[in-house]
Formats: sequence, C-alpha cells, structure tokens
Amino acid sequence: MSRAYLDWNATAPLRAEARATMIAAMDAVGNPSSVHAEGRAAKMIVETARAQVAAAVGAMDADIVFTSGATEAAALALAGRDLSGAAVEHDCVGVWTRGDLPVDAEGRVSTPDPASSAIQTANSETGVIQSLPDGLAFTDAVQAVGKVPFAFSWSGAQMAAISGHKFGGPKGVGALILRQGLDLPAQMRGGGQEMGRRAGTENVIAIAGMGAAITAAQADLDTGAMDRVSELRNILEGELRAACPDLILMGEGAPRLPNTMCIAVPGWRGETQVMQMDLAGYAISAGSACSSGKVKASKVIGAMGHDDQTASSTIRVSLGAATTEAEIMGFAAAWSRQYEKFRARAA
Amino acid sequence: MSRAYLDWNATAPLRAEARATMIAAMDAVGNPSSVHAEGRAAKMIVETARAQVAAAVGAMDADIVFTSGATEAAALALAGRDLSGAAVEHDCVGVWTRGDLPVDAEGRVSTPDPASSAIQTANSETGVIQSLPDGLAFTDAVQAVGKVPFAFSWSGAQMAAISGHKFGGPKGVGALILRQGLDLPAQMRGGGQEMGRRAGTENVIAIAGMGAAITAAQADLDTGAMDRVSELRNILEGELRAACPDLILMGEGAPRLPNTMCIAVPGWRGETQVMQMDLAGYAISAGSACSSGKVKASKVIGAMGHDDQTASSTIRVSLGAATTEAEIMGFAAAWSRQYEKFRARAA
Repeated sequence: MSRAYLDWNATAPLRAEARATMIAAMDAVGNPSSVHAEGRAAKMIVETARAQVAAAVGAMDADIVFTSGATEAAALALAGRDLSGAAVEHDCVGVWTRGDLPVDAEGRVSTPDPASSAIQTANSETGVIQSLPDGLAFTDAVQAVGKVPFAFSWSGAQMAAISGHKFGGPKGVGALILRQGLDLPAQMRGGGQEMGRRAGTENVIAIAGMGAAITAAQADLDTGAMDRVSELRNILEGELRAACPDLILMGEGAPRLPNTMCIAVPGWRGETQVMQMDLAGYAISAGSACSSGKVKASKVIGAMGHDDQTASSTIRVSLGAATTEAEIMGFAAAWSRQYEKFRARAA
Repeated sequence: MSRAYLDWNATAPLRAEARATMIAAMDAVGNPSSVHAEGRAAKMIVETARAQVAAAVGAMDADIVFTSGATEAAALALAGRDLSGAAVEHDCVGVWTRGDLPVDAEGRVSTPDPASSAIQTANSETGVIQSLPDGLAFTDAVQAVGKVPFAFSWSGAQMAAISGHKFGGPKGVGALILRQGLDLPAQMRGGGQEMGRRAGTENVIAIAGMGAAITAAQADLDTGAMDRVSELRNILEGELRAACPDLILMGEGAPRLPNTMCIAVPGWRGETQVMQMDLAGYAISAGSACSSGKVKASKVIGAMGHDDQTASSTIRVSLGAATTEAEIMGFAAAWSRQYEKFRARAA
C-alpha cells in the first residue's frame, strides 16, 4: 500500500540537496579543531554551513552556534533565566519558562515585557504565527523557518532557535542564533568550539546537511513553493469541513503557517484518529511528536480555552512541498469515512 | 602530493559500514517519537543501533543514552557532582572534576575513593591505559573503544562515555552508558526521549552510523586488526628513536593503546612540528584536537611531571587500521629530516 506522509511538522523528509552534501562531507577525514590540512577542510565545511544559515535566515550580523537541535539551543538560551512564556510553547521551551503569558482563543500570545519573555514564531500544532514584539528575549523559530519568511535581524528577537530536520536537513542538528556580542556561557563545556559557547566536536556531516537544506528551503520559499502547499491545505480544510460541519479549526482567525491544519472533533480522540489514519496509509499526528508517546490532552489547545475533551480530540495534518493533491483528496476521503463511523457510534 | 592521516585519536575516517548505514537511514522519513509507521521505522533504526552499541561494549544489562558526543555525555554524567579526577582527563571531563587525583610519571592515575572519582580508560594524548578500580563513578572510554577490548560490565565503572567518531562513526554522536537503575536527571529537557534522560529528536542518521561503526570496530578488534597497528606503531617508535636517541616516549612504562605514540624533543615546539609535518603531507597533532587551537603546554604531559618546555614540545602520532608501513616509514624520514634541521639550529 502506498503511503502519504502528512506529518512534516514532526519532521520533514531529507532534501536531495542535504543528502548530496552530507554524502560529500563523509569524505572529510579531519576534526575541525585540528590545525592540519584535513582539519582545516572539515572546518571549512562547518563555516560554509554557518554562512548558509546566516544568509537564509537574515542573520548576517548575528552569531550562530550549532547545537544538536532546537532542544539544546533552547536550553542554552533559556536554562536558569526564568523568562516569561506561554503554555503554547514547545516543551523544550516550556520547561525553562514560566507559562505565565496570556494566550487568546486563536492561540496568540502577548507579553507586557518582551525583554524577559520567550514567544515562539509559529506553533507546531496549530501553525498559528505570532506577532513578535520588538526586544523579545527569545523566539523558537523552529516551525517558521522554510515555511514563511523569517529574518532574524527583523524579528525583534535577541535569540532564536532553529532545527535542521524541520526544513529538510537531518535530525540531530540545530542552531541558536544570537545578536552579536550577547553574553552566553556554555553549558556543554570542555573544548573551545563555537567560540567557547558550545564544546564538543562539531557534527560536520549533519551541519553540512543543515546548511544545504536551509539554502534550498529558502530558495523554494522565494519561488512560491509554499503558495502551492497553502492551496492544498485550504482544499483539505474545505473537504473536511464539508464532511463535518461542526469541525473546529484551531487558530482559524489568526495568521497560520501555510502547511498546517489543526482540527478537533470533540469526543473523537486524536490518538484514535492517528491510528485509524495510519492504518489507512496516512501519517499524521495528535499534538507534537516529542510528546505524542504520552497520551494526554494537548496543552496548546487547552491554553486556547478549549476543554480537555476537545484538547484530546485534536489532530494535526502538516503538508510539505512534495505533498500532492491526490494525497490530500485521499486523506479527506479516508478521514471522512472514519468520521461517519465515529458519528454512527456516537449517535 | 599524497597525504597520510596519522591523527586517528583526533577523529577517525568514517568506516564504509557506517557510511552505507547512514545513507540507508537517510530514507527514513519519520520522527522516532511519532506513533505512525514512518515514526516506528525511524525508532527501529535508533533501537537497532542501541543494541549494537550494547553488544559491542559489553553493556547488555546497562542503559545507553545517545548524546551529541562524549562532551555531552560527560556533562550529563558529571555536571554538578564535583567528582575527583586527575589533570590528565580530557577537558570535557576536567571542567566538571576536581583535578585532585595523583598522576605518576607514566601517566597512571590512582584514587582513594573510586565511588566519587572519574578516571579515563585511556588517555587521548599518550595512549596510557588506566587500571580502573571497581566501583568507579565514571570513565571516559572514548579512546579505548575500538582500540582495546572494553566491556562496560567488567570495567567496574558505574558510567562510561563513548564517542562515535573515534571508532569510525560520524562526528556529533556519542553515548553515556550507565548501570541500569542509576538515577540521572536530564540536562536537555523537553520531550521524553531516551527514557526521559535526554530530550530532543534523535540524530537518527548519526546514531545509525555509530551502531554500524562500533559493530565493525569490534569485529576488527576481534580479528586482530590492532595487532598490526601496534606493530607499525612500534616500528615507528624504533625509527624515531634511532634518529633521535634523546627522544622522550611518554607513558613508555605503562600499558598503552596500540595505535598511539606521544613523544617529546624538548625545545622543538609541538605546534612547529605539526606545521612542518603538515607541509610534508602528514596529519598529526600536538595535544588533543579540541584544544589544539589554543597554543599552550599539554596539561597531560605536565601532570606526568614534565616541565613546560617538554610539555610544549610534544607531538602525538595516532594510527589506524588503514595506516600503511609506507606511510610510517615516510613519516619517520620526514620527521627525521626536520629533526636534523632543528638540531642544527639549536646547536
């Protein structure tokens, strides 16, 4: 049975450009910290990727610290700082922030004090895009990069975390972007890598892949790839709403990522829908992937004012550049069939 | 000009088995935390590698937490614990330990209290192998794995750190091995990955490569690949000593890794030798790679009782399974020519 992957916000397929660059980087023998020719060649790969990331996210005058992913980048930026944050933040930000910022019914966050707050650029579950206040301490830009224009220099944030595998790079690599001159003590200590901000031999192959992927993602975005994705997402929403007029579409009144749809049918558990759709050949999710092992109501949906039943009855469908209209229509049909069965059982 | 890579302790070339496994893993689309088929397939790759690591290092009844490298593994094991440790530890261990354990002239470390001590299995610069006391809190096994037999269950240690790129896996991945049931709070927090001990989407491709590499490294070790490497290392030591009878061979009186040679010619700076050899086509190092950017005397050699001049006049030559006798003889000739020039200048 052919399958359709509609869970791009959990992780995106590796881009061809990233794959080729990673395979080429496998031939670099040296350690980037070594001073000999082999070491310098490995260092060059890392620095090329750093320039690619800077160019793609409009951070030419910022520092970029490569990490093992956004979780590490968030810890590096946030641990011990006790910033304000909202309940809609990803868990890797939520663990370090206070959960005290208000969230409206559309998922929008506001803060009275940007300089001591963390606000995500876009939500992984709903796709809701935040309006970032100037002087914001930190933004989790993981879901925004590659899907909507994101320029660090214009974001108003002092620091931003990004993750390679969300835009077609490999899993296990990310970066913290920070305004030049910002003080930031290392958490992983030992060697002097990353200007003393992050010790440990660089993940040369993954960093190379991330650089290639972000360049390609930005080029795709510039040439309108996400416009097509947005059209498919809108078609999908129309189909599902036609099948189920009572559908709740999360964040409908707010700007959203072009590829993300988050819906609830109260009483029809999200995890049940995920399993039913998986059996039908469609990969989707309920909540964000890193917590989807745990069966509990979505914090994000709860923070938007929905009750536990609705928050437990939510699914996320997230598309990508490779998604086809046939996949979307197939999913809509499969979901609608299951919805009819749910309604028959519930009646 | 053809080059010879003689800096395997800094990082080893990627093994063919790791390369092939990584390329295959590039096709795994899912996030290991996702419950759908694509997610489960990615999870299977991670768990296969975990079993491979456990089997290779004799840790079948231990927990294995994948990290972004040994630096992160050491921080996870050691940060905030204030264990005793010697000055010969790698910086990523040294930053978290007290530097209070005695080191003898051959580089051997002893401790009055193993349960509150960290002792490396083998030293990266000298190759000196430690005799680990039973009940040791932590061992940095990075340089031992793949070069000498290492069985975690028999090591006497409660925890051990390993690094993929030292035995032919990719850079940017490692693991902390720990006795089952040992309590260990996560430092990177957020998702529930690695049994709650290390949040963040798994580096699937690198983890796959590490699993393949450690399996291949262990097979090579079992079939005597390091015996041949040891012979070449011994030939090299004989050649250099013949050219320079005053040569100091570090750790000569202690058991050493089969592939590592650490020598000093007092007054002939290690960094100068590294540059001269680099120009002659040979990649070697002075001190460990992660600190080799900084020009200072080796702490390791200082801890063995040598003065600053000697500690600044040390080079490390580290071989691997691909090293040939021609490379060794070529290096010996090139080094001897430079040594003659040094002696002429010094006279």
